[in-house]
Amino acid sequence: MKKIIVAVLFFHAFNSFAQDKDKQIVLNILDKQTQAWNNGELDQFMVGYWNNDSLMYIGKNGVTYGYRSTLENYKKNYSNRDKMGQLKFTILHTNRLAKEIIQVVGKWYLTRTIGNVGGHFTLIFKKINGEWVIISDHSS
Amino acid sequence: MKKIIVAVLFFHAFNSFAQDKDKQIVLNILDKQTQAWNNGELDQFMVGYWNNDSLMYIGKNGVTYGYRSTLENYKKNYSNRDKMGQLKFTILHTNRLAKEIIQVVGKWYLTRTIGNVGGHFTLIFKKINGEWVIISDHSS
Repeated sequence: MKKIIVAVLFFHAFNSFAQDKDKQIVLNILDKQTQAWNNGELDQFMVGYWNNDSLMYIGKNGVTYGYRSTLENYKKNYSNRDKMGQLKFTILHTNRLAKEIIQVVGKWYLTRTIGNVGGHFTLIFKKINGEWVIISDHSS
Repeated sequence: MKKIIVAVLFFHAFNSFAQDKDKQIVLNILDKQTQAWNNGELDQFMVGYWNNDSLMYIGKNGVTYGYRSTLENYKKNYSNRDKMGQLKFTILHTNRLAKEIIQVVGKWYLTRTIGNVGGHFTLIFKKINGEWVIISDHSS
C-alpha cells in the first residue's frame, strides 16, 4: 500500500513538474519574441508562431490566416523601428486547457517616440511534433 | 481481421459523430445567446458563460473576471434596447483543441438605430460537469 501511495505521489509530482516545465517553455518563447522585436527582427519574432497556413491572427482588421500573411501584416504595420518601438509583454494568466494546449492571456505594450500603444492578447499554444507553437493569437 | 476493420471504422465514425455533436451543441448555445440578446434578456444571454469567478472576458477595457462582473459590464454598456440593437454572430471557425475544449472564432455585429458596431471574438468552450460553457471570451 505504501508503495502505491509513494508511486501515486511521485506521479503527481512528476506530472505537476512537467506541466510547470511546459508553461516555462511557453513563457520563454514569449521572452524570445520580445527580444527579437526589440532588436527589430520581425522574422525572428515570428518564430513563436505555428509555421502553417492554418495559423490564425485575429486583430483590428479581422482574421489573418497563415504564417506568411501574418508576417507580411507585421512588416506592413511596423515598417520601421519608430513604429515598432520597445515591446513589453505582461503575462496575466497561463491556463493549461489540455495536455497539449496552453492559453496565455496578457498585455502588450509598445513604448514609442511616435506615441505609445498597447492592448491585450489571448494566445493559444499547441504542442505540435514536440514543439510548443502559437496556433491562434487574438490581439486587441 | 474484417471484424477489427469494421470495429475501427465504427469507432472512427462514432467519434467523428460525437465531435460533430459537440460542435453543434456549442453553436446552439450561441444561437440561444443571440435570441436572448435580441429579446433584451441579458441575464438569459449570460447562460452560455461559465458561472464561475474564473470566467475571463477580455474586451476593450482589459480583462473582466467572473460571471457576475461580466454580466454587470454588459448591463452597464448595453443599458437599453437602443444600445443593444439586434445581435448577429457569424461563425468563422470551430476548432476542437482537445476532447473537452472547443475554440470558436467569429464576428459579432449589432444593428442599431444609434449606429452599428461590430468586431471579432475568440471563445474557448470547455465541457465542465457534462455541460459546454464559455470559459474565456476575447471580443474586440
